[in-house]
Amino acid sequence: MNYPSRTIEEAVSEISKLPGIGKKSALRMALHLLKSDKQVAHSLSSALVNLVENTTFCTECHNISDQSICQICSSHRRERSIIAVVQDTKDVLAIENTGQYQGLYHVLGGVIAPVQGIGPNQLHIDALVERLRKNEEVKEVILALSPTMEGDTTAFYIRKKLAEFPIRISTIARGIPVGGDLEYTDEITLGRSILSRIDF
Amino acid sequence: MNYPSRTIEEAVSEISKLPGIGKKSALRMALHLLKSDKQVAHSLSSALVNLVENTTFCTECHNISDQSICQICSSHRRERSIIAVVQDTKDVLAIENTGQYQGLYHVLGGVIAPVQGIGPNQLHIDALVERLRKNEEVKEVILALSPTMEGDTTAFYIRKKLAEFPIRISTIARGIPVGGDLEYTDEITLGRSILSRIDF
Ligand SMILES: [Zn+2]
Ligand SMILES: [Zn+2]
Repeated sequence: MNYPSRTIEEAVSEISKLPGIGKKSALRMALHLLKSDKQVAHSLSSALVNLVENTTFCTECHNISDQSICQICSSHRRERSIIAVVQDTKDVLAIENTGQYQGLYHVLGGVIAPVQGIGPNQLHIDALVERLRKNEEVKEVILALSPTMEGDTTAFYIRKKLAEFPIRISTIARGIPVGGDLEYTDEITLGRSILSRIDF
Repeated sequence: MNYPSRTIEEAVSEISKLPGIGKKSALRMALHLLKSDKQVAHSLSSALVNLVENTTFCTECHNISDQSICQICSSHRRERSIIAVVQDTKDVLAIENTGQYQGLYHVLGGVIAPVQGIGPNQLHIDALVERLRKNEEVKEVILALSPTMEGDTTAFYIRKKLAEFPIRISTIARGIPVGGDLEYTDEITLGRSILSRIDF
């Protein structure tokens, strides 16, 4: 496309690098910002810089956090004998929203995906093993991964890695549509699938 | 939703102010930026500030432009006797992409939409009248607005405003699906609808 100005061409090019945003949507967003008060673009711009510069991660569960130990890990109201292993922060949010789970989390930061060059070493799997070694109170690990090929591969890999521990390893019930994305599952289905989790 | 950190909560809140972006997509984008090299967020951030601070508009046609007179208005290869009135920059791009139109443009900056509080005075309609007064070479104005209620209202309003000029006023052929958005019309349909434009 032949953009009428370099400022808009650059904005469209940068916005369309975001996942799920094509050039047409990016142009629509750029035009929206041009029509809005300049403050809208400035606030968005600062929030993005702030996000990547000041976001920290919990040293225990690797979820996004404001402190070095996150609210969930430091809460005395959570059940500390059970850890749900999830792919991403959005899965923690999805499970928290169900109100069905009171244990802790472990955020992998992705799933094993050889095609995209993501191997086990790029995920927080070794940190999970370390965590179990240090915390003998843990009695169960729930593998709460999306039932996709990558999710399954990751689950099998982790189960092997945790074989040395005398704990229950479970996986959330397949009430979630096969091939479906965990975060798009409705709260009731997701909540039930955690309650009726099965041994893995 | 209960976000795990204030940085991500703010980023999601700002990103979801963009048109067509819900909280879930915004969260997905924020997590994507957190996983990417920090430079991605910094480049996006600068492009947005640059967009709203350094974008200028053509004083003739009110399209986005790098100079005070845009490339189209200053080109000697364009037919200066004909002006296409459009809602927005994205419509200029859509029509340019058809390769079927060699005239000039006039960008209104919106359409009359009383529900959203947009009246004729917030659009560049008076500027169009001025432009016709100054340029007697203009022989035709094409109203290339989306065939929606707002587009039609705007077209009728402009036709009344231009009644004093001895020029042809046409509208693009309704090959465009009624209720459809101009920018989503395929190039062939849009190109043809300009060639077979009808008097208004
Ligand atoms: Zn934590
Ligand atoms: Zn111009």
